[in-house]
Amino acid sequence: MSGDAPELRRFAVERLRGFIDEALRALGMNADDAGIVAGLMAEADLNGSDGHGIFRLAQYARRIESGGINLRPDIRVIRDAGATALIDGDNAMGHLVMRRAAALAIEKARAGGIGWVGARGSNHAGPAALYCKMALQHDMIGIYAAIGNANHLPPWGGVEMLLSTNPIAFAVPAGEELDVVLDMATTVAAYGKVKTARLRGESMPEGWMIDREGRPLTDPERADEGFLLPIGGAKGYGLALMLGFLAGTLNGAAFGSDVVDFNKDFVTPTNTGHFIAAISLSAFGGIDDFKRRVDRVIRDIHSSPTLPGFDRVRLPGERSHAERLSRESAGIPLHEALVKELNTLAASLNITPLE
Amino acid sequence: MSGDAPELRRFAVERLRGFIDEALRALGMNADDAGIVAGLMAEADLNGSDGHGIFRLAQYARRIESGGINLRPDIRVIRDAGATALIDGDNAMGHLVMRRAAALAIEKARAGGIGWVGARGSNHAGPAALYCKMALQHDMIGIYAAIGNANHLPPWGGVEMLLSTNPIAFAVPAGEELDVVLDMATTVAAYGKVKTARLRGESMPEGWMIDREGRPLTDPERADEGFLLPIGGAKGYGLALMLGFLAGTLNGAAFGSDVVDFNKDFVTPTNTGHFIAAISLSAFGGIDDFKRRVDRVIRDIHSSPTLPGFDRVRLPGERSHAERLSRESAGIPLHEALVKELNTLAASLNITPLE
Repeated sequence: MSGDAPELRRFAVERLRGFIDEALRALGMNADDAGIVAGLMAEADLNGSDGHGIFRLAQYARRIESGGINLRPDIRVIRDAGATALIDGDNAMGHLVMRRAAALAIEKARAGGIGWVGARGSNHAGPAALYCKMALQHDMIGIYAAIGNANHLPPWGGVEMLLSTNPIAFAVPAGEELDVVLDMATTVAAYGKVKTARLRGESMPEGWMIDREGRPLTDPERADEGFLLPIGGAKGYGLALMLGFLAGTLNGAAFGSDVVDFNKDFVTPTNTGHFIAAISLSAFGGIDDFKRRVDRVIRDIHSSPTLPGFDRVRLPGERSHAERLSRESAGIPLHEALVKELNTLAASLNITPLE
Repeated sequence: MSGDAPELRRFAVERLRGFIDEALRALGMNADDAGIVAGLMAEADLNGSDGHGIFRLAQYARRIESGGINLRPDIRVIRDAGATALIDGDNAMGHLVMRRAAALAIEKARAGGIGWVGARGSNHAGPAALYCKMALQHDMIGIYAAIGNANHLPPWGGVEMLLSTNPIAFAVPAGEELDVVLDMATTVAAYGKVKTARLRGESMPEGWMIDREGRPLTDPERADEGFLLPIGGAKGYGLALMLGFLAGTLNGAAFGSDVVDFNKDFVTPTNTGHFIAAISLSAFGGIDDFKRRVDRVIRDIHSSPTLPGFDRVRLPGERSHAERLSRESAGIPLHEALVKELNTLAASLNITPLE
């Protein structure tokens, strides 16, 4: 696109999906699983989740080559209480585990109004929004949370990074308006944003990170000397902690000091925990009634006046949707440094380079 | 207590409970309901939720006397899908509705692993923590959220107050350590804190409120000229919105522009919405195992080093617990302005004054 920075290049989503698929198969994954993971990763890129799609491929490849991912997993339900279940991912790619968990939560919600499925023995699964959005087409609300795969957040008032950015996502079906999709870290900035600032040589705004003395840290090159700040101070800390108990501890997954930093350790199973809940609209009343009420809220928000400096008032998920429309037609922009990394990977796997 | 400010006076929790109970009966509530509501309100004061206990009594009384609360409600389950239910509160006191909802959620969690109960036709129910804590003694995790009873929060980038502080609370059972209880508004400050600052003649810190031009607003006397800020900017807005869909829209309760401001309107039914979820630990594994893992996280956090300016690292719920211990022995501190208000109420109801 004409407005792109010179270091950006665009690729059709199908090209990225195909590249990921081929890479995963070259890494030893069976065709079915590679197709599923590639589809979800390309979907992440299409939705504008730049830190969670093909950007992660080289890291996943390194973990697979190091034996840190089980390519022949037996993903199975190890507990089922009717409306809840616990899945052991057997150290599979997280995408495979959470796609299965989402399908089971939806099935349970159809039967009993809600399904809540926890997972352990999983791995990084990409953006949170991917999984809660699976509920939308079934006229359900989706809720998803996960333990982040590296601890960058201390408890409030502390300096030991015992917590992660533990994200939470919600997807709520609308009628004529866009579905509302929120995907948020419990920290002011996700760590991926720090990485991006470092890549671009930009400084970070105050409020993202502090150093061990509590002073603002704005140089991303010094990120290792500090840590992320939670949203709302003690509140964001509390929220990250509670999501950790729900996505990690409840499922027997890693949380706190036993979280494996997947940026530094490519071998030890991460025992990643997540949960997904699906809530059936029809268990609470008429589906169309619900969607009409959601539409009204959306329209009230859209038509409400703005603060100085804002062009309009948005709903969560709108930017991602606009980005998706743009990327469907113009392609997905990748930074040239990423393209280079992917082509190096392609050479090592003996597959066709991205170009 | 020797450290109290001169304008504070302390009362035993039983005295407050008895006073509330007598007031509610004088207002026409039956003895059973008055006992339940008085118990929960006094419990709120005991836990340090100063804005949600006896502080609310005069406001509740005014609403009851204005016909804005149904004193002979038929609180009933109007939908039941197995693991979910929807309760219509018939415009009862919110405490009665949510106590019933919590009991039902716990019953459902015992049967199917999780119970999720929504309510509409309810009213203000006091602090969120009260209800999710009911799950603890059943070896369950509790989650509760509600629509705030006055809109003080615009969508991010807007100036029209379409949202409330919509709180969320979680209660997680520990083993030998204290249970972890988080009760948080999705705004930087709850509106009760603004009221308290005004009462005390103190200014507010920057970050609590802004005016319609987006400038910091620190004078609580000018609170009507501005609005609260969400935690984490757009993230807290998104969270308040999603909790609104879940606690309000899903249940057919008021949300957005149809929220009744209970500070200004004492007659119109508020149609308050809440939800409560209970999750059974035993549906996911061993109860003792879970509690041991929670204890480990708590101990790791407690023993972690602090930032300059912090004496120790705390878990959510610790301050409330310490306050409870202090109040059990030394009594509950009430501001003299509140005591005066309560004694005026007592005179109008022809009951024994607080002293």
